[in-house]
Amino acid sequence: MNLAIKSIYAQLEAANIDGLLISLPANISYLTEINSRDAYLLVSKKENIYFADSRYTQELKKNLNQAFTLEKINGSVFKLIADTFGRLGLKRVGFEERYLVCGEYKNIKKELKKAIDLIPTHSLVEGLREIKTPAELQKIRKATRITIDALRFIRDFISPGRKEIEVAAELERFIRYRGAATSAFNIIVASGPNSSFPHHITSQRKIKNNEPVLIDIGVDYLGYKSDLTRVFFLGTMETILEKIYNIVLKAQQEAIKKIKPGVRINKIDKAARRYIAQRGYGRFFCHNLGHGIGLEVHEEPNISAREENRLRPAMVFSIEPGIYLPNRFGVRIEDLVLVTPEGVELLSDNLDK
Amino acid sequence: MNLAIKSIYAQLEAANIDGLLISLPANISYLTEINSRDAYLLVSKKENIYFADSRYTQELKKNLNQAFTLEKINGSVFKLIADTFGRLGLKRVGFEERYLVCGEYKNIKKELKKAIDLIPTHSLVEGLREIKTPAELQKIRKATRITIDALRFIRDFISPGRKEIEVAAELERFIRYRGAATSAFNIIVASGPNSSFPHHITSQRKIKNNEPVLIDIGVDYLGYKSDLTRVFFLGTMETILEKIYNIVLKAQQEAIKKIKPGVRINKIDKAARRYIAQRGYGRFFCHNLGHGIGLEVHEEPNISAREENRLRPAMVFSIEPGIYLPNRFGVRIEDLVLVTPEGVELLSDNLDK
Repeated sequence: MNLAIKSIYAQLEAANIDGLLISLPANISYLTEINSRDAYLLVSKKENIYFADSRYTQELKKNLNQAFTLEKINGSVFKLIADTFGRLGLKRVGFEERYLVCGEYKNIKKELKKAIDLIPTHSLVEGLREIKTPAELQKIRKATRITIDALRFIRDFISPGRKEIEVAAELERFIRYRGAATSAFNIIVASGPNSSFPHHITSQRKIKNNEPVLIDIGVDYLGYKSDLTRVFFLGTMETILEKIYNIVLKAQQEAIKKIKPGVRINKIDKAARRYIAQRGYGRFFCHNLGHGIGLEVHEEPNISAREENRLRPAMVFSIEPGIYLPNRFGVRIEDLVLVTPEGVELLSDNLDK
Repeated sequence: MNLAIKSIYAQLEAANIDGLLISLPANISYLTEINSRDAYLLVSKKENIYFADSRYTQELKKNLNQAFTLEKINGSVFKLIADTFGRLGLKRVGFEERYLVCGEYKNIKKELKKAIDLIPTHSLVEGLREIKTPAELQKIRKATRITIDALRFIRDFISPGRKEIEVAAELERFIRYRGAATSAFNIIVASGPNSSFPHHITSQRKIKNNEPVLIDIGVDYLGYKSDLTRVFFLGTMETILEKIYNIVLKAQQEAIKKIKPGVRINKIDKAARRYIAQRGYGRFFCHNLGHGIGLEVHEEPNISAREENRLRPAMVFSIEPGIYLPNRFGVRIEDLVLVTPEGVELLSDNLDK
């Protein structure tokens, strides 16, 4: 039985809940330590049950840890889940309110034969996932390493006349040869004015000389994600672009130097936001400063101006201030940091910016 | 105002509902004809409103059709949505029960200031999406074309000593040079015994001589998806493998020749399943025969033994029987078909199998 499961048991006991139905794939992957899709997991002291259909059962028989019983889905998964609650004699079963859809909730509820309460829960597993174990950190470091190598490699490929999508093509190829299973999200290659859209969709646009090319890339290494952004410049850099770049870079440094255990998370966001606002570009920094990363690209903690929680050692998140001048250009610089007992470690330290 | 929106209005009127809150990205993309993420869409005769946050508003101002009002999310999206229901004087608002999560439902409900009923709805938009327009078909054809080219291209690359992930790397690169935005799902490259897992995760395994290599690949072309599977053979083919291959191929043909408007969908599934079962491999065909495809890789109609609905012209779906012999090998052959007024068109006709 792994520590995470024991911690869930303790949390359930404190909430007077005797089982937890988990539906978020990343949460299931975290607890079972296998790559999970299309599954449900019931965690309870009586029995931990992994529900999967016949597409997956052969692999699961081989890979599923013996702390979990494999239950094959034949017919309605909702009836199976409801019957299982009954069979185990559960009275109060938690579910993940942020991930279970209304229709599934209703279907399970309908199939319950006994008086069983379904209790909404929040972040029971996500809360554990905020604090990375050494084994998790190792995978995040490797994912980050591959991403750094990819960004170094692509620098020489980017040139006037290349399409954005061709740059993405080469990156997608490169990361797999370096051991990544896949990209963690659609790689963003945003050239010239396209860089002014924070979530640009990589297009067929040809890169021109004397313009910025923003690349936002992450990879999946054994389930763990990375996420880095750099802006490259071709030819001569406009003065305004250089000015903006330096503001974003300095804003990032202002945020990073505030990071240590015990600091309120909103202070980190505010440090970068204040710096940018003081230089007159506040309204062009239109997103949060960062996000936790691990089994998901975006997970807790959210590094936002509204987050009151405090930093704790072994949290890993992105710091990515940006300034976007509509229809002109955008600059975002994104690194990953680890909160250490003493302060902060920049995981993407050896990548130029 | 596009036809799809008008059709939604008519469906809402029939159900005595005066607004529909849409949360499935593909449904929003379908109605707005732009690539949508992280958004909500309210469709009502009073006003159609697109809710998006500041990361997307700049692009949306340029691209959003004037049938929709853009509403920028500042603070709680749930309060904004609830207030909008009130402002428009809506009394009964539908939501997508299969996509709205319990927590969001609860948050919207909590913010409602007037007595507004939230009504669960099913497949209002998905039902429309089943029948492809000529413009949609054109994109699916192009996505399929790129995928066919990719499978032809990769045949020469596959050789003993190559890793599965390297094959995926070359495919990921190739499709983008041919105009795809991205792969539609993680490309499956399953060599030797790995092919016996229907949903194998492409690994670092090196391909060996005299074994099958199953490749399941789809691409995204302007939002529309493709999905094809082929099995390649290196060196000499075991007799049993050849036998299984021919059974799967024949089962696929049995299914395809049944396809025409008016036929019950389960008949299609059963035709392939019966053929495989009669040859003694029924229990090794462990998934549905196929699935609809369009803006999503898996959408309606589901081509399963339980689907009672009838085929209609302009439906597009996969036909993908498979036989998986545990820990030995698996064979799946997947093509895309279009239901025509007269019968069926094989969209991936010119790809060898």
